Amino acid sequence: MAFFQYFNGQVLPLDSSILQSNDLGLIRGFAMFDFFRTYNGIPFRWEDYWKRFENSARLLKLPLPLTQKQAYDILTELYTRSGEPEVAFRFILSGGHSPDGVQVQSPNFIIRTEQLPMDSPEGRSKGIKVLPYEYVRDLPTVKTTNYVHMILMAEEMKRKQAADLLFHKDDEVSELTRSNVFFFKGDQLITTDRHILHGITRKVVLEIAQDHFEIVIRPIYLTELLEAEEVFTTSSTKWVMPIRQIGDQVIGQGSAGPKTRMLQQMFEEVLINWGK
Amino acid sequence: MAFFQYFNGQVLPLDSSILQSNDLGLIRGFAMFDFFRTYNGIPFRWEDYWKRFENSARLLKLPLPLTQKQAYDILTELYTRSGEPEVAFRFILSGGHSPDGVQVQSPNFIIRTEQLPMDSPEGRSKGIKVLPYEYVRDLPTVKTTNYVHMILMAEEMKRKQAADLLFHKDDEVSELTRSNVFFFKGDQLITTDRHILHGITRKVVLEIAQDHFEIVIRPIYLTELLEAEEVFTTSSTKWVMPIRQIGDQVIGQGSAGPKTRMLQQMFEEVLINWGK
Repeated sequence: MAFFQYFNGQVLPLDSSILQSNDLGLIRGFAMFDFFRTYNGIPFRWEDYWKRFENSARLLKLPLPLTQKQAYDILTELYTRSGEPEVAFRFILSGGHSPDGVQVQSPNFIIRTEQLPMDSPEGRSKGIKVLPYEYVRDLPTVKTTNYVHMILMAEEMKRKQAADLLFHKDDEVSELTRSNVFFFKGDQLITTDRHILHGITRKVVLEIAQDHFEIVIRPIYLTELLEAEEVFTTSSTKWVMPIRQIGDQVIGQGSAGPKTRMLQQMFEEVLINWGK
Repeated sequence: MAFFQYFNGQVLPLDSSILQSNDLGLIRGFAMFDFFRTYNGIPFRWEDYWKRFENSARLLKLPLPLTQKQAYDILTELYTRSGEPEVAFRFILSGGHSPDGVQVQSPNFIIRTEQLPMDSPEGRSKGIKVLPYEYVRDLPTVKTTNYVHMILMAEEMKRKQAADLLFHKDDEVSELTRSNVFFFKGDQLITTDRHILHGITRKVVLEIAQDHFEIVIRPIYLTELLEAEEVFTTSSTKWVMPIRQIGDQVIGQGSAGPKTRMLQQMFEEVLINWGK
């Protein structure tokens, strides 16, 4: 195992000390990132992740120091040097080192290779518990690095055996800390596009689901989620993950419902066949 | 000029590359800071700044790796090594390097010495322009590093010759990006304590003002600020700074009013005599 990272033109060991203490990502929280992985050695939905990364950069007014082609070549090099069959990639673009702590001069661009996140086959059959949390993300369409609430609540989540937070405000639900929310109502598959990061897994699931369910994109509410028969969340690491409990409220049968299972299987087919 | 920084037990040149790319301050925005300076070579209101820093750390559940005494000894060493008559200090405490990007293992503590911020004697007599901006800071009592909106708006502020943003939501005003707001109504000096970072300059100004004005702490509103005769802001770098214009609306006479001037002079007396 030999994970490397790209940093402003160089390829370095993953644990190199590379950043100065006046990086705007550190001192001003002015940074964005993205995270995705390979299946069968091929970066999953690269076009979509790159497009989202470009979009985040545009919204933060940060110039991208690499073209899509250059970035892909770096991915390939990092993947090869890792010697691993599969890797995860974390892109980080910060405002860069700034003499006055305000002006962006030249962004810092880091591409990290990382070990795959822990898989949770048990979670996918049994479902996860999430805690309702009153919050709506700032600049939700940008994948900023602001995850203060998630880190702050990490201990309480552990104590309550919850896997994530469900953000809601004035009853309206937006997303989990790092994933999107869906629920079923009869044959309707319902999800929101308000105050969310547009997940790539969300996009793939919507593509898959459209031949099987009536898809409804509209604002969604905590009160209706609590009464739904099946609720699930999607992310690059969670795939299609049933939500079996929201706070104290058990959802449906308290495990993965049949429609969620069906989508899970279809999504996992896509992964198994990726690049083939 | 030789500015140094303290980092986890070492004293290093200010531009050393010290941080790995898995620092939770960088990848999760999980970091806090404080900023203050010397007058006559003595850190201004050290007790207050340290107390606030401790409070921020407690609210983020980050253990402080140094005692107050140890931190002060480091300030003294950094100040001496700078060879400068006056310096500014920036404390940064991040969640530290984290293997999984979520769990805090050991915070990174950085103390930077920096050049003094630019003084603005012209601003203090003529006043500054600020732009109303609909926003309320998340976790306002913690001096987190989340200044994304300030950086995002830096260009527009420049274009509109504005020096800062005035945060308001549903008409209620909280603070500027990095400073507190006051206004006069007759002999009442009014400021808010809702959704604000409790400024040390704010505290000193309240101490000074109490023998001269009736001090009222209550929610304040944009509509009343726009009609006020004198509005000013306080911060460690702005001291007592008149606000002459909010968006397109000129405030009072469009320059520093007499009561603001009086407080300015009293505050600057405190600075001149600091440590004497």
